[in-house]
Amino acid sequence: MNIEKRLLEGDKRACARMITMLENNDEEAIEIIKKLYKHTGGAYVIGITGPPGSGKSTLTDRLTKELRKMDKKVGIIAIDPTSPFTGGAILGDRIRMNDLALDKDVFIRSMGTRGSLGGMSKATWGAIKVLDIYGCDYILVETVGVGQSEVDIVKTADTVLMVMVPNLGDDIQALKAGIMEIADVFAINKSDLDGADRTKVEIEMNLDLNSKEDYRPPVVKVSAGKNKNIDKLLDELIKHRNYLEETNELLVRRKENTKIEILKLVEEELMDLIMHKSLEKNVLENLSEEVVHKNLDPYSAKDKVLNIIKE
Amino acid sequence: MNIEKRLLEGDKRACARMITMLENNDEEAIEIIKKLYKHTGGAYVIGITGPPGSGKSTLTDRLTKELRKMDKKVGIIAIDPTSPFTGGAILGDRIRMNDLALDKDVFIRSMGTRGSLGGMSKATWGAIKVLDIYGCDYILVETVGVGQSEVDIVKTADTVLMVMVPNLGDDIQALKAGIMEIADVFAINKSDLDGADRTKVEIEMNLDLNSKEDYRPPVVKVSAGKNKNIDKLLDELIKHRNYLEETNELLVRRKENTKIEILKLVEEELMDLIMHKSLEKNVLENLSEEVVHKNLDPYSAKDKVLNIIKE
Repeated sequence: MNIEKRLLEGDKRACARMITMLENNDEEAIEIIKKLYKHTGGAYVIGITGPPGSGKSTLTDRLTKELRKMDKKVGIIAIDPTSPFTGGAILGDRIRMNDLALDKDVFIRSMGTRGSLGGMSKATWGAIKVLDIYGCDYILVETVGVGQSEVDIVKTADTVLMVMVPNLGDDIQALKAGIMEIADVFAINKSDLDGADRTKVEIEMNLDLNSKEDYRPPVVKVSAGKNKNIDKLLDELIKHRNYLEETNELLVRRKENTKIEILKLVEEELMDLIMHKSLEKNVLENLSEEVVHKNLDPYSAKDKVLNIIKE
Repeated sequence: MNIEKRLLEGDKRACARMITMLENNDEEAIEIIKKLYKHTGGAYVIGITGPPGSGKSTLTDRLTKELRKMDKKVGIIAIDPTSPFTGGAILGDRIRMNDLALDKDVFIRSMGTRGSLGGMSKATWGAIKVLDIYGCDYILVETVGVGQSEVDIVKTADTVLMVMVPNLGDDIQALKAGIMEIADVFAINKSDLDGADRTKVEIEMNLDLNSKEDYRPPVVKVSAGKNKNIDKLLDELIKHRNYLEETNELLVRRKENTKIEILKLVEEELMDLIMHKSLEKNVLENLSEEVVHKNLDPYSAKDKVLNIIKE
């Protein structure tokens, strides 16, 4: 049986194979997704983000277990930040999820970025579609950090969960600014630590200043490590889903998200082309040699590369 | 007198004006930099990065004061992560630096990113060149986070200082992977906290595994808040500079960094073009409408946008 049919019938190995193909930038995988695209849209995508050390992985783990109690089929994509030089993915605490990995209705995958210039978004969005076609009810996309590519992925989820922790220090301001506006639900993890209430107040105050029209993001104190209030957090996530569905906002949001995705795909394809063209005949090497010796400025070098691409 | 001459003569207001022009994407500023490009290269650029809450701003402040004791002229660029929606910069704890701002030989500037699609790198690299032409001996470029655009900026510094703090939790693995390889000097800030020695050991162990050939990044325990060991940290930064200059590695590094810069400039210009073209005649709006209703898949939509750009 071919991989298309197997994926449609919920074959886990076909699903894994498809994602590997996407990671290898195999055009056949894209062709398959194009063909099966009308089978997407059934899965509900939750993006989970937050600063380093906030315990996103453990929380994702716990949420998955709650969803399993409701007999939902769950896909997890953990986007690992990787070295800009080696491009290798970090497995890290993903290993902890082994007990979930044995569950036939849970699919877990760590995905790395692909060096500094593009490729990541295409593979990750592709993987989300594969899990959707595969038949997941929920797809949890988890990522650390506030990086732009990661933010682009997370903010195109249907619901965005922002995980905070007490005592983030001064940079909570920066984090808030970068991410707070895209959050639909806040979790304060490790909420048995001192300062949890202060963090909650800070978030609430920020929400007072920047409130959305009909929907106010709830702030839930949880402890993923101690499995506390996870059910309550899931309730809030589902409430947000219901809100989007009832107000027809879900379609509006998915349309906006699609715009971001199309633009990112265009960007990545162009960057591939640029990398390819610039490496040909040492173009980039020669230009940077000239710039570093002040025979050329970087802006004129940029124009030369653009001219080569236009050919 | 025109702005070119004033900038060359070290006029602070001309410097500020040029950076504002860059932020406004004013092509005249680029033309001026192109003309004055041969006057760059005198400044030594130190990139300062680290996770949220590591106290980078205070440390930058302290390092600047040490450099002032040596009568060096210092420029500071603080890259603030900004909301993907509003594009406004966060002043945050920059305000603390007021006493430095009164020093005529210190130039401080906060720069925000420009929304989610490009623009930031061009303005930031331009500002570094402006400060170089203006006559700074040292330029400190400080940024929070592990985002790709920020990493691109920081890693194109001459020396990269990575600021860590004790007890970063599980995600230290991820941070290490994302950034450790680009660090030339490590500072463990807030080193009077418990766990500082363990963090030092962890970093040293990682360095044992990934040691560079002739140069091993030093790990310095400091306390920016208590102004402890800042002189020692600056010593190590200058030692790295001497190492690069004596081995002629500085030229090699600047050439590699120039490649990254040229590619980023190309990317940003193309993305501007794409945004412009896609917004014309509601192209993006119509395509995403079709995708969301499953009449089209995102990959075919991407191809349509690419075709429009080719015209």
